[in-house]
Amino acid sequence: MISFARGIPAPECLPVDDLADCARVALERDGKTILSYGASSGYGPLREWLGARHDVDPARIFITNGSLQGFVFLAQRLAVGKRVLVERPTYDRPLKILRELGADVVGLHCDDEGLDPDALEAALEKGEKPAFVYLIPTFQNPSGRTLSEERRLRIVEIAREHEVLVLEDDPYGLVRFEGEALPSLFELSGGETAYSSSFSKTIAPGLRVGWFVLPEPLARELELAANGTYIGPVLLGQAAAHEFVSRGLFEPNLERVRELLGMRRDAMLTALDRELPEIRITRPEGGYFLWAELGGVDATELLARAEAAGVTFVKGTDFDGEPDTLRLAYSFVSVDEIAEGVSRLAAALAVPV
Amino acid sequence: MISFARGIPAPECLPVDDLADCARVALERDGKTILSYGASSGYGPLREWLGARHDVDPARIFITNGSLQGFVFLAQRLAVGKRVLVERPTYDRPLKILRELGADVVGLHCDDEGLDPDALEAALEKGEKPAFVYLIPTFQNPSGRTLSEERRLRIVEIAREHEVLVLEDDPYGLVRFEGEALPSLFELSGGETAYSSSFSKTIAPGLRVGWFVLPEPLARELELAANGTYIGPVLLGQAAAHEFVSRGLFEPNLERVRELLGMRRDAMLTALDRELPEIRITRPEGGYFLWAELGGVDATELLARAEAAGVTFVKGTDFDGEPDTLRLAYSFVSVDEIAEGVSRLAAALAVPV
Repeated sequence: MISFARGIPAPECLPVDDLADCARVALERDGKTILSYGASSGYGPLREWLGARHDVDPARIFITNGSLQGFVFLAQRLAVGKRVLVERPTYDRPLKILRELGADVVGLHCDDEGLDPDALEAALEKGEKPAFVYLIPTFQNPSGRTLSEERRLRIVEIAREHEVLVLEDDPYGLVRFEGEALPSLFELSGGETAYSSSFSKTIAPGLRVGWFVLPEPLARELELAANGTYIGPVLLGQAAAHEFVSRGLFEPNLERVRELLGMRRDAMLTALDRELPEIRITRPEGGYFLWAELGGVDATELLARAEAAGVTFVKGTDFDGEPDTLRLAYSFVSVDEIAEGVSRLAAALAVPV
Repeated sequence: MISFARGIPAPECLPVDDLADCARVALERDGKTILSYGASSGYGPLREWLGARHDVDPARIFITNGSLQGFVFLAQRLAVGKRVLVERPTYDRPLKILRELGADVVGLHCDDEGLDPDALEAALEKGEKPAFVYLIPTFQNPSGRTLSEERRLRIVEIAREHEVLVLEDDPYGLVRFEGEALPSLFELSGGETAYSSSFSKTIAPGLRVGWFVLPEPLARELELAANGTYIGPVLLGQAAAHEFVSRGLFEPNLERVRELLGMRRDAMLTALDRELPEIRITRPEGGYFLWAELGGVDATELLARAEAAGVTFVKGTDFDGEPDTLRLAYSFVSVDEIAEGVSRLAAALAVPV
């Protein structure tokens, strides 16, 4: 089975030997701290590094065992039984977390430029003030779409005007293969919006190092929740990541990852253009995913046929997308598998239902 | 300030250099697994090792980022709005977690032999069937008490008769300085009760490796909760711990830790016998803590005077204990600090209120 479902990096992206040495050296240097109960907000030196990188006081940095864990703390604190605005489609895990907390999740219209600011404004002008707005503006999961700069500015203005918290989730932003990087909502807002990211796509997901940049009172509240849940996070992954960035390995590794994933994106676009020119797809300049619209073909039915043909993907409805949409991940599979997988997908799509 | 409050190991207990090498070697050997998203139940080889150690199928082992995180999953699954039976006094963090979930926490009478089985039986015979019974039978936090073997057998029988789940939390059992180890409730029940432990007291707390032995259907349910919260746990700490135990370092390290902590327990008992013969204390054969009963003196008032004199502890009411009780941790401080700290405590106690 060729998997276009798994949104994880290809094994060759993982800097195994460097991290093995970084973990050893971090423990030898600071083992008594790393191996004891640590601060609930994360490893001090990494908070300092992240604070400098985001140009904020490290007290605003909250590091968790993967960024999803931080989202859970934030949602538990703010969203229980409340309205939350999200892009439609959006990442399925936050949707599930919010719904289990009894949040009223409202999906907002998106197009090729990402979230439609008019849809956001309309949603804010009627109904209960939302707990927060959850957005993935760059190389979005699942759509691969990137919010245009003009819209970013407008969304920051709208959020300010309505005094609503925006959480910008940005795990993919640095995994850009081409084109100019856009300023984040966080930057455009002068640090007013909340921001989250992780090292999962830039170093290694198994480290489980995610972080939030938050207004300081909220950071303290979530730190208390973390303390009550796991006392302190696992510092070893954070310390290994800190050693990795301190050695100057972050940027060279990112270049390597961009090349490895860019090749895969190219292979997938080439194969789709060749084999399936009739379906509408996004053409992301970075990240892990692209989005396909099947023009009325039901993606759930296609999935069964595709899996019978030896290729899999995630159907769009898992992300609150339309029934005729699907997400294709090119991050995990090899270039050869991508070509073969798209051929199988085309064959499955050619079979009359 | 000399801290008899901190229930953490003295820094010299931490096997820093061995773990530095174990982390490196584990990553070099199995980095592609450790650094990717892993199984939500934990690192496969460590689950195998724990399964063999507890003589159960590894499918019953659920490893979390510290055992408190596993307790949160268990409590969220079973205890929301339900009755839960606990020892009185007991570990404050589970109390807080249960109360925040709206559980009706019922504390059961304990004496020098630990939980009174008659109190358990009486509580089970009237009122709603509890979601579970939470016990720390060996070197209990906060009291340092150990449940006698006779009572263990009786409690297993009572639990079986009433078909109620018992969770035996056993982080301290292996940290025994003297005397014979008692069989766990888990062993006495033939693996029917649930069991949790961690490497925090036997290797290092900063690894944040805790585990549960559960009925398999419950293990699968909590695995789903873990997946929805953090995808997979931090495998690096688990893999380093696995390398540590695979090298045969666990038992020698435990011997070393027992000696380092046993010296501290001895120093505290000696100092208390010398300086405060009038207060009633427990005399644990292992673990981190002992419990003092002040015979009517209010521990909250004493705490203020003690801190003014440069020594601190945790008052018993934090554990749902009586107002004239307190917990003294000897695990963190040095032998010299223990003598000085007890002198300060005696001075604070001698001051008329």
